[in-house]
Amino acid sequence: MTSGYATLTDRFARIATVGEASAILGWDAATMMPAGGGAARGDQLAVLAGIAHAMLTAPETGEALAKAEATPPEDAWQGANLRLMRHSYTRATALPADLVEATARANSACEKVWREARKASDFAMVRDKLAEVVGLARQAAQALSPVLGLSPYDSLMDGYQRGVTAADVEPVFDAYEAFLRDALPRAEEIQAAKPAPIRPAGPFSADRQEVLCRELSKAAGLDYDHARLDRSAHPFCGGIPSDIRITTRYNEDDFTQALMGVLHETGHALYERHLPHDYARQPVGEAAGMAAHESQSLIVEMQACRSDAYLAWLGPKLQATFGGEAAAYAPDNLAGIWRRIERGFIRVEADEMTYPAHVILRFRLERALIAGDLAVADLPGAWNDGLHALLGITPPNDARGCLQDIHWYDGGFGYFPSYTLGAMAAAQLMAAARRAVPDLDGELARGNLGALQSWLATHVHGQGSRLGFNDLLAAATGKKLDPSDFTAHLTSRYL
Amino acid sequence: MTSGYATLTDRFARIATVGEASAILGWDAATMMPAGGGAARGDQLAVLAGIAHAMLTAPETGEALAKAEATPPEDAWQGANLRLMRHSYTRATALPADLVEATARANSACEKVWREARKASDFAMVRDKLAEVVGLARQAAQALSPVLGLSPYDSLMDGYQRGVTAADVEPVFDAYEAFLRDALPRAEEIQAAKPAPIRPAGPFSADRQEVLCRELSKAAGLDYDHARLDRSAHPFCGGIPSDIRITTRYNEDDFTQALMGVLHETGHALYERHLPHDYARQPVGEAAGMAAHESQSLIVEMQACRSDAYLAWLGPKLQATFGGEAAAYAPDNLAGIWRRIERGFIRVEADEMTYPAHVILRFRLERALIAGDLAVADLPGAWNDGLHALLGITPPNDARGCLQDIHWYDGGFGYFPSYTLGAMAAAQLMAAARRAVPDLDGELARGNLGALQSWLATHVHGQGSRLGFNDLLAAATGKKLDPSDFTAHLTSRYL
Repeated sequence: MTSGYATLTDRFARIATVGEASAILGWDAATMMPAGGGAARGDQLAVLAGIAHAMLTAPETGEALAKAEATPPEDAWQGANLRLMRHSYTRATALPADLVEATARANSACEKVWREARKASDFAMVRDKLAEVVGLARQAAQALSPVLGLSPYDSLMDGYQRGVTAADVEPVFDAYEAFLRDALPRAEEIQAAKPAPIRPAGPFSADRQEVLCRELSKAAGLDYDHARLDRSAHPFCGGIPSDIRITTRYNEDDFTQALMGVLHETGHALYERHLPHDYARQPVGEAAGMAAHESQSLIVEMQACRSDAYLAWLGPKLQATFGGEAAAYAPDNLAGIWRRIERGFIRVEADEMTYPAHVILRFRLERALIAGDLAVADLPGAWNDGLHALLGITPPNDARGCLQDIHWYDGGFGYFPSYTLGAMAAAQLMAAARRAVPDLDGELARGNLGALQSWLATHVHGQGSRLGFNDLLAAATGKKLDPSDFTAHLTSRYL
Repeated sequence: MTSGYATLTDRFARIATVGEASAILGWDAATMMPAGGGAARGDQLAVLAGIAHAMLTAPETGEALAKAEATPPEDAWQGANLRLMRHSYTRATALPADLVEATARANSACEKVWREARKASDFAMVRDKLAEVVGLARQAAQALSPVLGLSPYDSLMDGYQRGVTAADVEPVFDAYEAFLRDALPRAEEIQAAKPAPIRPAGPFSADRQEVLCRELSKAAGLDYDHARLDRSAHPFCGGIPSDIRITTRYNEDDFTQALMGVLHETGHALYERHLPHDYARQPVGEAAGMAAHESQSLIVEMQACRSDAYLAWLGPKLQATFGGEAAAYAPDNLAGIWRRIERGFIRVEADEMTYPAHVILRFRLERALIAGDLAVADLPGAWNDGLHALLGITPPNDARGCLQDIHWYDGGFGYFPSYTLGAMAAAQLMAAARRAVPDLDGELARGNLGALQSWLATHVHGQGSRLGFNDLLAAATGKKLDPSDFTAHLTSRYL
């Protein structure tokens, strides 16, 4: 180990430890904090972010990097770690401090107005604020582009999922659009020919839902010596690998959201939990990106836990918990509820077949916004036209159209593709796991995700960020991202 | 405002904000964190402490101090703030980094062994570790002494309660010992002549206790938009002024500990909540010290909430909550339970009359340890002799003797006097509040601490650290610390 490299691992470990503090404080703000603590919490997170940024961008970091890079790495992990450190330093130092500050201020102001605009379904209310946010995001993209050697939009995507570009995504999304044009009407026809599923009769006590959620997440592999499950307005997986905090919310009329939400967050949690311990607090020890992360939540929620095998195990458990007629909990009936295809306006409510259409729409629009090919004022029209072209429906208003997601209004451009790349990777990894794990369905039929998770721990989680997204998939499945496993999964499940 | 001063307020605000993050993380560790998060949490707190320490001791702090001190302060608050900044800087820079590190390591190691030694009631197990801790504390005291212009022991006391020295405490404690020699047997005689109180019959559900605790703390003035009440192994008041976290534990056989504990922590919480907002995150905006803080918990718990007037209001409320026979909840009967005098071995279980004896014992012993007049090996004997001289009883073993408190084994020397100085100050402040607030007992008889807290907010809480302990008392009550109000209170309540 070179002395420059040792300096770097110390420094990045300290930066990561400050980030851990912020992660717990962020969880607390969403779950525990009384409303009156909000202003001080904002200051605390800003000060910690400032401290971490200063540690990362300090001249000493650059000097240690140069020194370490002059020595050949001891192994692939060290080499990857060093490249990721350089990447992190390059991104952080590329943005002038005044741009970072102006962006934080503009994003925060825009997000506040967006909440009101969405309530009022009035895009005009937030248009100017969004224009400012887009302008600053374009400046950031321009600043990052030359130092990363990526196009401006790709520079923003790189902030969420390294190693994937718009040029990779575009043909995949175009092909999916073509698949959907054929598959969606057929799936709808097949679905319409079946009897409508019976809704289990509520109410479903939140406390019982919570006990069940805890049990299912345990059966899926979550170790509560290193995790908590709490309630928040929006479900998320937070905390740190040795102290994971997942959340959900409970609707006493319908347990779907809580149950599937917890299984989804459990997938994220297991990824964090199984990251390579030897590289904890190092860039190479982190998850491989947002698309990779989403693949892990979706392989649990969509691939494993909405499978026939798992539903056959889950149905009786649900009936034992909530009572009511057995027919409502029959696996076929649950599948009818939880695998229902529907052309809708809202991304977060979408089924797995139409979900990518929502993402494709946003990917195309945000690319155009960042390229300057679409004016913010023209966004609502472009949104409605785009959704109509993809799904044949037109939102009745902007609240159910271009105002529905927080991402852009909070400055998040380049994130949306991760959702669908993750869904595709989940199908690809599941197919590989099925080949590798004998009787995976038999395991799922006992509610046991252990064999699947053990395979993922080796081939995905334990790899940290050593490999890029496509190389990770190639090492695990024998090929780079290939959407045919996803369309094959949809075909098998719906057609 | 001088530019040096502005630099300092910014810097101290950032240091305090890092401290706020640590405060919330500390609360989380005691209430929410799964066991598996402990190691990482230790790292997070150590890194944040290191960052705050580095910001405080940086040469830039010294330069800004020198510059600001060259300009006359704008007002008394600024002057006091500057003096406190200097004091903080002086303390932090006086200790060599290797001593700080060795102390942290030794304290942590000793505390771990102490837990085992206390279980086994075997002082010999921890003797050498404690000797090391005492040795390092003596070194710290020697290093602080010349720069603070205080004796070594006073330098340690100064870390908990500025402006009070052993020379102030000694005559007060000697006089109390004399008072107790006469008062305790008389109080015991009076108590023995009364019928034994009836214990309310349990069990008392923890959930009901919690609802009641929340209600009582609200009635005492705690605003839950800026506070939480949770459960932890040891009750405490944590968090920050705009986001206070109090905790307690529930024993389903007896609600005394939870109820009185929450009222005690509520007193601490109200102090924090009413600190001067204009000086938030500045040294002058902090509480005036640990004795001052304890005065605020005890004025609520001991002075207000164990008064006849308050018990008359509380009794029916308890009966409505827990049911059972009315006689057990009669104010006189509750007074018989909650104002019971008893010579015991354990400080934290002691009544308000014998509690100071436990503190006097520890004050004398820790002074002798720091002065080098008492060898660690001789501590158990000195303890037993000292307790016998004060209370006429001898502990049956070291677990109930010199091993009972964590303080010394964790490196805390100079803290113990604060408990009794606080109890005395509470009586003195209550006497002054009674003179200033018409019909204070009438308010207490309605469970209302508003008038008392409003007086305290003006005369204590809102003063922050502008005044030292004695000057604060003098401004609020017309005289420096005067134990006669405390003995008058005891005489009136017990004799």
